[in-house]
Amino acid sequence: MLGGMGALATADFYRRLVQRTPAGSDQAHLPVLVWADPAVPDRTAALLGEGPSPVPALAEGARWLQRAGVSCIAVPCNTAHAYVEQLSGATGAGVLDMIRAALETAARRVHGLERVGVLATRGTRLTGLYERAGARLGLDVVQVPASVQEEYVDAAIRAVMGGADPTGPERWIATAAESLQGQGDQAVVAACTEIPLVSGAAARVLPLVDSTDALAEAAVARLWRPTSGVRTGERIG
Amino acid sequence: MLGGMGALATADFYRRLVQRTPAGSDQAHLPVLVWADPAVPDRTAALLGEGPSPVPALAEGARWLQRAGVSCIAVPCNTAHAYVEQLSGATGAGVLDMIRAALETAARRVHGLERVGVLATRGTRLTGLYERAGARLGLDVVQVPASVQEEYVDAAIRAVMGGADPTGPERWIATAAESLQGQGDQAVVAACTEIPLVSGAAARVLPLVDSTDALAEAAVARLWRPTSGVRTGERIG
Repeated sequence: MLGGMGALATADFYRRLVQRTPAGSDQAHLPVLVWADPAVPDRTAALLGEGPSPVPALAEGARWLQRAGVSCIAVPCNTAHAYVEQLSGATGAGVLDMIRAALETAARRVHGLERVGVLATRGTRLTGLYERAGARLGLDVVQVPASVQEEYVDAAIRAVMGGADPTGPERWIATAAESLQGQGDQAVVAACTEIPLVSGAAARVLPLVDSTDALAEAAVARLWRPTSGVRTGERIG
Repeated sequence: MLGGMGALATADFYRRLVQRTPAGSDQAHLPVLVWADPAVPDRTAALLGEGPSPVPALAEGARWLQRAGVSCIAVPCNTAHAYVEQLSGATGAGVLDMIRAALETAARRVHGLERVGVLATRGTRLTGLYERAGARLGLDVVQVPASVQEEYVDAAIRAVMGGADPTGPERWIATAAESLQGQGDQAVVAACTEIPLVSGAAARVLPLVDSTDALAEAAVARLWRPTSGVRTGERIG
């Protein structure tokens, strides 16, 4: 696991990975290695051309995980997925695709899904990651208006990263979900790993897919084998 | 962090470490490395002479963390503390003392504390770790009767490790706390990292100290520095 983006989101992904694993005993869980450096340069700032690239720091972490023998890497940060190709190119590491996992979960959850709203960082929006992945799955991906992005989504993400009281962010994310509902979206993807930490109220507005949970589910599907309760011997990093 | 003992307890420790860190922004959090192999041999079985020693597996993890430059190691498993001296001897790694952290927290929490009850694995009981640490702090450490240990405490730990529904374990841990209260104890230490996951009801019986949280607090006190919001540069493993 390449984590630390942010710190609480990494701990949240870890918990979901454990809870998604159908292990009947403690010994049957997946071996996990985590490299979490909160000093990885801000991904959105880099995408906006306002800060250094996170790739060198991510590649350092990926190489460290590879030396320990991990068979695939999970990066519980949607925005960092803009750098996954560069990261794989630099290190040869296989990285689970969180964006695709989230959209596939949405398509499974809502029958006949055509329009799906996305709540993400400005960085993720800029990259068009969700739009491209949606096109491959036949889904129209819709973003909130710029004013909603700034006033509600960005503010909520910053507040969660800073460890602020979740009451305000909960309300802001619900307001953003209402905006998507008003645009005719049938579901919403919490497409930043900070958002599921404050998306309880939003989930009462529209069916909500948690990208953190979708990544955990994809990791378990890829790595865990129930054969006599014995692990595959593969490690997740 | 040397984790995986158990899997959910490790994720729980990770979350508490983040939440205990007074970082005002995401970049100000501590860098964390985790090596979590659920295949580390069972600590209690080893202490009872019924299974292999966990030391070689723990030492492998410790050496891997050391190569990545961690300055101290947290082991969120009380029973594994029986092997901390061997582990430090084999690797030279500095390990945070979870047992002492938990008892110091109890002494701070309950004014005039003299008798403190401990809910732990059979392995931790056998080692006398809490009794010796208590003696150094002037505290009498008391265990539950053997029948309560087996019927309630061991059963709850096993259930949490296996991912069972928490309703039963919650009730069993509360029953064990009532037993300690009946023996005249003034506080209880949840001295197995699985127990805080099901100790809500027990905390209404007696003041309850969560060993996972005490370790997180000790790690933050040791590593985090507020100087201009900049980290010390030290890593926790």
